[in-house]
Amino acid sequence: MSPKITTELLKQLRQVMKSPKYVQEPVQAYIVPSGDAHQSEYIAPCDCRRAFISGFDGSAGTAIVTEQHAAMWTDGRYFLQAAHQMDNNWTLMKMGLKDTPTQEDWLVSVLPEASKVGVDPFIIPADQWKRMAKALRSAGHDLVPVKENLIDTIWTDCPQRPCKPLITLNLSYTGVSWRDKIVALRSKMAERKVLWFVVTALDEVAWLFNLRGSDVEYNPVFFAYAVIGMNTIRLFIDGDRMMDPAVREHLQLDSTLEPEFKIQVLPYGSILSELQAVGEGLSPKEKVWLSDKASYALTEAIPKAYRYLTPYTPICIAKAVKNASETEGMRRAHIKDAVALCELFNWLEKEVVPKGTVTEIIAADKAEEFRSQQKDFVELSFATISSTGPNGAIIHYKPVPETNRTLSVNEIYLLDSGAQYKDGTTDVTRTMHFGTPSAYEKECFTYVLKGHIAVSAAIFPNGTKGHLLDSFARSALWDCGLDYLHGTGHGVGSFLNVHEGPCGISYKTFADEPLEAGMIVSDEPGYYEDGSFGIRIENVVLVIPAETKYNFKNRGSLTFEPLTLVPIQTKMIDVNLLTEKECNWVNNYHQKCREVIGAELERQGRHEALQWLIRETEPLLRAQ
Amino acid sequence: MSPKITTELLKQLRQVMKSPKYVQEPVQAYIVPSGDAHQSEYIAPCDCRRAFISGFDGSAGTAIVTEQHAAMWTDGRYFLQAAHQMDNNWTLMKMGLKDTPTQEDWLVSVLPEASKVGVDPFIIPADQWKRMAKALRSAGHDLVPVKENLIDTIWTDCPQRPCKPLITLNLSYTGVSWRDKIVALRSKMAERKVLWFVVTALDEVAWLFNLRGSDVEYNPVFFAYAVIGMNTIRLFIDGDRMMDPAVREHLQLDSTLEPEFKIQVLPYGSILSELQAVGEGLSPKEKVWLSDKASYALTEAIPKAYRYLTPYTPICIAKAVKNASETEGMRRAHIKDAVALCELFNWLEKEVVPKGTVTEIIAADKAEEFRSQQKDFVELSFATISSTGPNGAIIHYKPVPETNRTLSVNEIYLLDSGAQYKDGTTDVTRTMHFGTPSAYEKECFTYVLKGHIAVSAAIFPNGTKGHLLDSFARSALWDCGLDYLHGTGHGVGSFLNVHEGPCGISYKTFADEPLEAGMIVSDEPGYYEDGSFGIRIENVVLVIPAETKYNFKNRGSLTFEPLTLVPIQTKMIDVNLLTEKECNWVNNYHQKCREVIGAELERQGRHEALQWLIRETEPLLRAQ
Repeated sequence: MSPKITTELLKQLRQVMKSPKYVQEPVQAYIVPSGDAHQSEYIAPCDCRRAFISGFDGSAGTAIVTEQHAAMWTDGRYFLQAAHQMDNNWTLMKMGLKDTPTQEDWLVSVLPEASKVGVDPFIIPADQWKRMAKALRSAGHDLVPVKENLIDTIWTDCPQRPCKPLITLNLSYTGVSWRDKIVALRSKMAERKVLWFVVTALDEVAWLFNLRGSDVEYNPVFFAYAVIGMNTIRLFIDGDRMMDPAVREHLQLDSTLEPEFKIQVLPYGSILSELQAVGEGLSPKEKVWLSDKASYALTEAIPKAYRYLTPYTPICIAKAVKNASETEGMRRAHIKDAVALCELFNWLEKEVVPKGTVTEIIAADKAEEFRSQQKDFVELSFATISSTGPNGAIIHYKPVPETNRTLSVNEIYLLDSGAQYKDGTTDVTRTMHFGTPSAYEKECFTYVLKGHIAVSAAIFPNGTKGHLLDSFARSALWDCGLDYLHGTGHGVGSFLNVHEGPCGISYKTFADEPLEAGMIVSDEPGYYEDGSFGIRIENVVLVIPAETKYNFKNRGSLTFEPLTLVPIQTKMIDVNLLTEKECNWVNNYHQKCREVIGAELERQGRHEALQWLIRETEPLLRAQ
Repeated sequence: MSPKITTELLKQLRQVMKSPKYVQEPVQAYIVPSGDAHQSEYIAPCDCRRAFISGFDGSAGTAIVTEQHAAMWTDGRYFLQAAHQMDNNWTLMKMGLKDTPTQEDWLVSVLPEASKVGVDPFIIPADQWKRMAKALRSAGHDLVPVKENLIDTIWTDCPQRPCKPLITLNLSYTGVSWRDKIVALRSKMAERKVLWFVVTALDEVAWLFNLRGSDVEYNPVFFAYAVIGMNTIRLFIDGDRMMDPAVREHLQLDSTLEPEFKIQVLPYGSILSELQAVGEGLSPKEKVWLSDKASYALTEAIPKAYRYLTPYTPICIAKAVKNASETEGMRRAHIKDAVALCELFNWLEKEVVPKGTVTEIIAADKAEEFRSQQKDFVELSFATISSTGPNGAIIHYKPVPETNRTLSVNEIYLLDSGAQYKDGTTDVTRTMHFGTPSAYEKECFTYVLKGHIAVSAAIFPNGTKGHLLDSFARSALWDCGLDYLHGTGHGVGSFLNVHEGPCGISYKTFADEPLEAGMIVSDEPGYYEDGSFGIRIENVVLVIPAETKYNFKNRGSLTFEPLTLVPIQTKMIDVNLLTEKECNWVNNYHQKCREVIGAELERQGRHEALQWLIRETEPLLRAQ
């Protein structure tokens, strides 16, 4: 993978940063955040402005360009990838390392006195604006909103914003109708004494209306906003999608409805002016609820005294706790996903070992092919990380022709992949060796497995936040002087985004909401040796009530149930490093894989994959 | 312990809340925080305003009185104590429980429209003011500073502010001279481009000048502020303490000094006007550094544009990393402290078992007596928690005649105690049974011990924050449905406050500074059964470099070394619940106690205590 040459682009950007056509006064620095106007993690091609200007296309990163410098902040998952994709015009700022300056500190250190720093107010979240503006102000600089996006002005072949058809989801998938979701939302609004709620996150709009789309690759969402009043519902959405009879019926657009459930459909682009009108019509004590991560532009539309900002919206919190229909859907999706992976791994063993003709890309494509054979398959849930040998150490690697390696019997293979099914979202990582792993590789794998089990089998009282479990995943690695530079888990949507809040298992977060039964997160510790290999073991797990001897004085307790049921390669395990309890966990897990996935493989007539499953789930034997 | 009757006092307070003599406009609520003007945790009697108005005298708590209500917020350590000490006028708000409202939310729920909420601006930290003011403002209320403290106006017999002689500490104790500390501070100030630093915390003033005092019980500090400029040093302190020739020589007050080390001594009460003068004399870009926990009054003295606020001051951070002289002093102090406790426990065994005449107060006094026999003993480092049976479940219990129980062979005894020696500060908890503990008591004790060991033996990479280790202490308890409602550890000063920042081991904190070699914290998990018993095992531990097999790619790693060397009662341990590694930890720890403390007992000719130590440090035998 060769870096993108950005000399000419940066020159153009620096010109528009001074052009009176776009800025009232020249800006000495311009910030290019990762997200779109909805603060999405995964974005449409037309929103990949940071990748356009820098070449770095990982899912997280912020670029800042000044007259002299161009710098990119990203986290441990992307240190290698960003270094590979960016040319010498760019300085990589490794977030999470002690000596890396924050964006604010760096700006203050490089800017001339009384500088202006520009940013697109629709792209920067209000909370980031606030922090950045404050830090700059206290150093004598100014953060200024630049209405026209400056990257767009130099991006001559920028693709169009997508506007694809919608999918309606009925009660058997969602468990709750959109009307009941509106009722529940309004009751939360009444509790907090707010009159309006602005839905800005794409997955929240999709969840609220039980609709899905495909405007953003991997995320079944569509570009829209919604503004919910106590008696009104406004949906801001473009295109002829609202002409689809199925959508019209689903939203009851043509029915005679109680007025408070009548949906008013407005153009996507009118959100700002409509919201400004709402803001102007407010009386004292009338509040508007927004996420504190909503864009600065929308937040500013509501006068400060009328804003009610929270880090997590009531929709985000309700969405995280899956109901029985959603949980059952997630179970079904994970069973189908496991069938596809058993097929894949069986196929890989047959192809890699004797022939050596399978590349990372071929393996990824084959995984997608097997998944697409399963019922209700929609698309992948993220770009498949199919990586062998040193590529495995690039944490969010995606194989491209320039980097594509051939799987062999000499290297570790790491596959992190998942899919969107109409009944659920999957995300699973398995690490395997098709030949004979070294003692060191087995040692590292076994520490990662111990960490995975420590989280998966953890019992904790009701009210515990997920970040408090993160160190459990690291303890075995730490004991030997190993670690990994990413969080241990993230929330997973139900036929929605594969990463969602407000819960997770990460040392980086403190403000996560406590785990509760019905929440779904990933458990994915890893270990990465730059230039050699990567190891990660990931299951999606459901938070369930636990039974304990003393039950926390009736406070109750929780634990996890793996939804992912794919064998963990026993060849990679050094059984002597496992405790008896850990060994039993692996054997019980494999027993369940054999029973549940075995039955489905049988039902689908996939006999060869079934044989593979049975071989791979043989119990571990531990020396006494 | 009977509750304080507060009906009359609350009536008086509600009168002054409306009196034009003290408030410009009536205040509908008045906040009485815990602290003093230095945001100290331990306070002088004249500052115990919250205890005066409510009766609740625990170390943490905030009272709010409105025209109709009186409410007290405190944390899990004090739920029982507060409930015992307060009468029916008061509502206890249990912080940390899910349904407990925040002070702001509660105020908003009970106040009439457009209320004024008063608070003493010298007592409320600026960060709390800001949060509270914002929440109240957004609900249409106002937080207002009330210059005269309203509690003081009704507290007719309020004691005088203490003003006791100072102790000077030479280099053999401190390792670094006050001049070198000023030089280091100024270099940190230059790094951040600030011209002034305001020292507001009492332990920071004491540490900076290598002075100690006794104005506050248990904390060797004195009432003072300091303002450090790049060329000036101002010390705000009252009384004739500066007349002491030893102090004058220590501070070189009468020497011909470079002007930048000349200390200007000013009255304690002049800090506000002097700081206002500093604030008025500032030019643009000239900044004043304050803790964001400094009082609202002092923070407001500096115009907002000139303030540089940080959660931890450079003094706080420098003070936390003990140098070789301080570490050696802490080791010596802990050896002496262990000698005293061996004497105590030996004495208790002789007295409790056959005679049954020892009460909690007698035991606490005896502990102090043995400690006071040790070299350089100054005072206790906190009120001794000497508690037997159900009193042990009151986490920060202090025996008083009304609650005083007699130690017996039927109940668990918990002793949490410590002392100030001129060379260091100690804090140790041991839990013991003088008869035969039940299987359940042993089970709980052993889980707590497993948690204690999990933290003490933890290995973690450089840069890890202490709060990430908190769950290690709970894992064994959680597995059985048990937990404790306090953090696992706090920073410990070196002949300074027994609780200090910026590090600790607590799930409640996220903003702690990463642990580094030389920091000293406590490791004190517990388990409490209301109405029955309390268990806690606490050592003070030093952060030291660790050796690991792979050394975190040269990032380096850390672990803990116990400074506390007092036997852990093996009678309370269910050996079958320990792993081999845990069993070895206990045996190695006891071996070290026997060697180090045994030698000192021998040297001091304390032969009977030595025999006790040898008996109590017999190795555990674990069934294979």
